[in-house]
Amino acid sequence: MSGAQIYLKYENQQKTGSFKIRGAFNKLACLTERGEIPDTVVASSAGNHAQGVAFAASLLGVRARIVMPKNAPIAKISATEGYGAQVLLHGGGYDDAYQKALEIADESGAVFIHAFDDADVIAGQGTAGLEILKDIPAVDTVIVPAGGGGLLAGVSCCIKEINPRVKIIGVQAEGADAVARSFGSRGVASTERADTIADGIAVKSPGALPLSLINRYADDVVTVSDGEIAEAILLLIERTKQVVEPAGAASVAAAVSGKLDLTGKKAVCVISGGNIDVSFIQKIVERGLISRGRQIKLLAVVADAPGSLEKFAQVTGRLGANILSVTQSRHSAGLQLGEAMLQADLEVSGFEHGRQVTDALREAGYTMV
Amino acid sequence: MSGAQIYLKYENQQKTGSFKIRGAFNKLACLTERGEIPDTVVASSAGNHAQGVAFAASLLGVRARIVMPKNAPIAKISATEGYGAQVLLHGGGYDDAYQKALEIADESGAVFIHAFDDADVIAGQGTAGLEILKDIPAVDTVIVPAGGGGLLAGVSCCIKEINPRVKIIGVQAEGADAVARSFGSRGVASTERADTIADGIAVKSPGALPLSLINRYADDVVTVSDGEIAEAILLLIERTKQVVEPAGAASVAAAVSGKLDLTGKKAVCVISGGNIDVSFIQKIVERGLISRGRQIKLLAVVADAPGSLEKFAQVTGRLGANILSVTQSRHSAGLQLGEAMLQADLEVSGFEHGRQVTDALREAGYTMV
Repeated sequence: MSGAQIYLKYENQQKTGSFKIRGAFNKLACLTERGEIPDTVVASSAGNHAQGVAFAASLLGVRARIVMPKNAPIAKISATEGYGAQVLLHGGGYDDAYQKALEIADESGAVFIHAFDDADVIAGQGTAGLEILKDIPAVDTVIVPAGGGGLLAGVSCCIKEINPRVKIIGVQAEGADAVARSFGSRGVASTERADTIADGIAVKSPGALPLSLINRYADDVVTVSDGEIAEAILLLIERTKQVVEPAGAASVAAAVSGKLDLTGKKAVCVISGGNIDVSFIQKIVERGLISRGRQIKLLAVVADAPGSLEKFAQVTGRLGANILSVTQSRHSAGLQLGEAMLQADLEVSGFEHGRQVTDALREAGYTMV
Repeated sequence: MSGAQIYLKYENQQKTGSFKIRGAFNKLACLTERGEIPDTVVASSAGNHAQGVAFAASLLGVRARIVMPKNAPIAKISATEGYGAQVLLHGGGYDDAYQKALEIADESGAVFIHAFDDADVIAGQGTAGLEILKDIPAVDTVIVPAGGGGLLAGVSCCIKEINPRVKIIGVQAEGADAVARSFGSRGVASTERADTIADGIAVKSPGALPLSLINRYADDVVTVSDGEIAEAILLLIERTKQVVEPAGAASVAAAVSGKLDLTGKKAVCVISGGNIDVSFIQKIVERGLISRGRQIKLLAVVADAPGSLEKFAQVTGRLGANILSVTQSRHSAGLQLGEAMLQADLEVSGFEHGRQVTDALREAGYTMV
């Protein structure tokens, strides 16, 4: 699909479900080494950094207070609490939570652990790059999702300093592309909004330190649409049996999008995390089933008389289409007296089967809308 | 959850998405070694053995003809064709497909590759046991899903011959428990029906050879319900980020069911495969969301007057409940004149949130049904 030999770096299989434990643990380990280990650490996060800090703190016997936005995925909130952290829900997005966490750190004297704008955190994320070089010494290209920019900065710096021949490509969501804008202008950009299904990389203002490293070390930063991300999630479920969160699938979305020339290359896609809410998987799968012709929605005008639904049930049953839902109503604008509107969701085996079913219904006298 | 230290043997990550490639490849390799490599092989399978034979045949340049039941999962049919095999859909279940495949082999002189009742196939499946002993020498218990019995026979024989101290537990679905019955009676049992969501282990007549090995080497064979299997699939998605098919989740279902005493043990659950249709994942997730209180269904009697729905939308919106669907109708048996029935599916954060929403609706004057 990409023309390349693709290797996947499964950070979704990492403890806490994402790469964030690397940076969080390295930060706390560095503080310890410098004799600065605190009683309490504070962090703000939509989810993955929260879990990383909470788990790293629990390993080192440090208390963690985490501020998360109110719309953070429920699975991430309960996982963070599960690692023993105290969670405070505040504000409608990452930036509000960030301000609140800074306040708490100021008032309490606790050490604030930034999710990406911190050299120790970035160095920790870079260990993923070290492992890639060790596992696949002949790698040509490494594709890395970017939000705040910590992972991309760490991985690109680490890999380029060891092997400058390797190309590093950052990937952002179209609706949250501050790193891509910054990269194009070689400056520091931020965006008004961060509007994407990829909550893990929905960041309006990336860090100054990661941006300067990315501008220095990365080769390109591209964007992918939410639709491409959703397709990549489904592809990874079906073909690799891996559950991946939208941010984590962005690298694969870029690899199969045709936007990168990977022909004949050995490329690594970093799957940055797997913390996806089950209700969201449900939406992704539903969308994928419709776009692949596995579910169809029908609207048909039928006679408002006994027997109308029976014929519909006969035709669909004979062709092996599974009825998921059906409603019939005579209250619809545009209907003649004596007509009713039948609305149905059907499960079919694919586009061809769907066409057979709609053709057969037409032959049976239904007017398809 | 199980009291044990659980290790997962990810056969869902195996090429072709299940352990079946082990047996199929070993069978063809043994035929080659004996100078008996055929032009064409024939097999019957609901899916995983089909893919294993198709892929092994393609590696060795042998043509494969596979008979699959008409209700085989679409993903498994197209994957089998994707490995270059010719697929024939026949009959309503494994047994019909099996008879048809035997006929084809008889008529064409092709070699029939049995899914489980074959010593070379069983020996191939046993390699999973070898790897377990190598990876976890101190293992106490190995839990293995069983349908036809090939995997359980191979793994139990291999492990017991090397280390008789290791306990081997087979797991079957309650609705297809012929191996469990056979084990109880130390004989050869079959069942009238194979009725379970776990298509990979829905076998009415296990093989005589695997049964004799299981009766000799396994320590116990237990059963799990379809509900326990579904919960295990959801657990594996959330906690291990792995996509697992129902048969593959049966081992984990048994481990967390409380039916086995695993306290303090090192136990390996063999995740036998990951070939699950996406539409089925959708159903599992939906069921899981309802059973965990993340989706609620409401029926409320409301005034059949303008403004009724607005209040409902206000209350749910204020409490942060997401409306998935809503319908309102005055055509319901038992309604008084001037009343209507409102039916809604809501997404909430859990049982507590769900209660808050229903309480608030009651306070707002809705009669909840």
